[in-house]
Amino acid sequence: MGIPDEKIHPVATGVAIKTVEKHQEPQELVFYSGWFCPFNQRTWISLEEKGIPYQYKEVNPYKKEKHFLDINPKGLVPAIEYRGKALYESIILCEFLEDAYPSHKPHLLPVDPFDRAHARIWIDHCTKTIVSATHRLLQSQDKESQDNAREELYAAQRKLAKEVKGPYFNGEEFGLVDICVAPWIARDYVVAEHRGYKREDASKEWKEYADRLSQRESVVKTMSEREHLNVIYDRYLRDEAQSEAAKATRAGREIP
Amino acid sequence: MGIPDEKIHPVATGVAIKTVEKHQEPQELVFYSGWFCPFNQRTWISLEEKGIPYQYKEVNPYKKEKHFLDINPKGLVPAIEYRGKALYESIILCEFLEDAYPSHKPHLLPVDPFDRAHARIWIDHCTKTIVSATHRLLQSQDKESQDNAREELYAAQRKLAKEVKGPYFNGEEFGLVDICVAPWIARDYVVAEHRGYKREDASKEWKEYADRLSQRESVVKTMSEREHLNVIYDRYLRDEAQSEAAKATRAGREIP
Repeated sequence: MGIPDEKIHPVATGVAIKTVEKHQEPQELVFYSGWFCPFNQRTWISLEEKGIPYQYKEVNPYKKEKHFLDINPKGLVPAIEYRGKALYESIILCEFLEDAYPSHKPHLLPVDPFDRAHARIWIDHCTKTIVSATHRLLQSQDKESQDNAREELYAAQRKLAKEVKGPYFNGEEFGLVDICVAPWIARDYVVAEHRGYKREDASKEWKEYADRLSQRESVVKTMSEREHLNVIYDRYLRDEAQSEAAKATRAGREIP
Repeated sequence: MGIPDEKIHPVATGVAIKTVEKHQEPQELVFYSGWFCPFNQRTWISLEEKGIPYQYKEVNPYKKEKHFLDINPKGLVPAIEYRGKALYESIILCEFLEDAYPSHKPHLLPVDPFDRAHARIWIDHCTKTIVSATHRLLQSQDKESQDNAREELYAAQRKLAKEVKGPYFNGEEFGLVDICVAPWIARDYVVAEHRGYKREDASKEWKEYADRLSQRESVVKTMSEREHLNVIYDRYLRDEAQSEAAKATRAGREIP
């Protein structure tokens, strides 16, 4: 996500800060996190779902620790330090957690190779269509662009909902497709309040799926208070946000 | 890659047609291919490297078979039909081949979870920086944009070359990072002839790596004759190409 905007609250709040407090002890795996970032939340949900021992470290985007920059020169979050070496990129981190902790359930990807590839196609869909349409809807300033973005978002969500075996994407086991889209569902109240978005207007199936994901324990306990998120989203709604995703959307590019 | 430009040669040629001829028998796995497409070549190289039995079917982009569209409504190549169901997206297909044929060597990804995630970071780099800079270099029409794109390409290649353990990215075993970048190396003669590109101007290490990959048997035997590729690349050089990658580059967007 790059450097977010100025005046961001320095730490997680609400339910999320309780989760942070439980993960202060040093561990083999260190999770470098930005509490506000939905990409970051993907990795955090994966850690919580699989019950992996981790140490949580909030990265202050304006004052990054020397050690963090030494192991991860780009300074990106989410990042994981594992046995002294760093990895980054939200989905790559989730796949890493699956590979490195194979006995921890749930399995984030199906075991069957075909189903696994099928899930990866829909993981791509989450980022390329749902996330990008959400950003266009958030950032568009005129009614016509907002209407178009909202319709694109509904279409993308409807399409994903049709592939959901139920209750989760892969069936009974909560997995990586769910994780990839959940942070944007948990934040969709912003477009509901400001951009006329309604879950049920995508489809009945989408609403049920979205309601289910937003109530999932790992999603709930990695969400901070809306009061602090709203400071950030107000800048998106005015199209003044400076995150990498915001800048890409403004320039008409894909989200990197 | 979407639909390419008009008047594309209908079948593979040169060394590649001999490879095609060896894979005409029906198999459990059908490879739906576009001979000209570098994304497509990633999957083809993976099939050849791992010695997986496959049936090759060339997809005529203007006249797609009903069966192909039935199983793969987007009509994208590369695609794989496996036990009657379709998958697409070049890297997802390569990962599928690794998952579905785990005993076939080489292993396209390292076994160690950290090394595997590290490889995935650099697979991303291939598409996001090397492929996109190559397209900007190909399609730019003025000297300044070409100079900038060439420098970006050199920087991206230099960066990757520094991560290569040697002789291949992961060391002795040829793998998915090599596969992801090889098709663009095999086609870099176009920018060498028309855009002042030289492998050695990226770095000595890049030149050695690029020379090695372009001579790899699986890369050589999935390349068609330049005469037919040039018809396609002439359109890129005039910035008239209509592939998805060409349109994204023209619009200043990331390659989808």
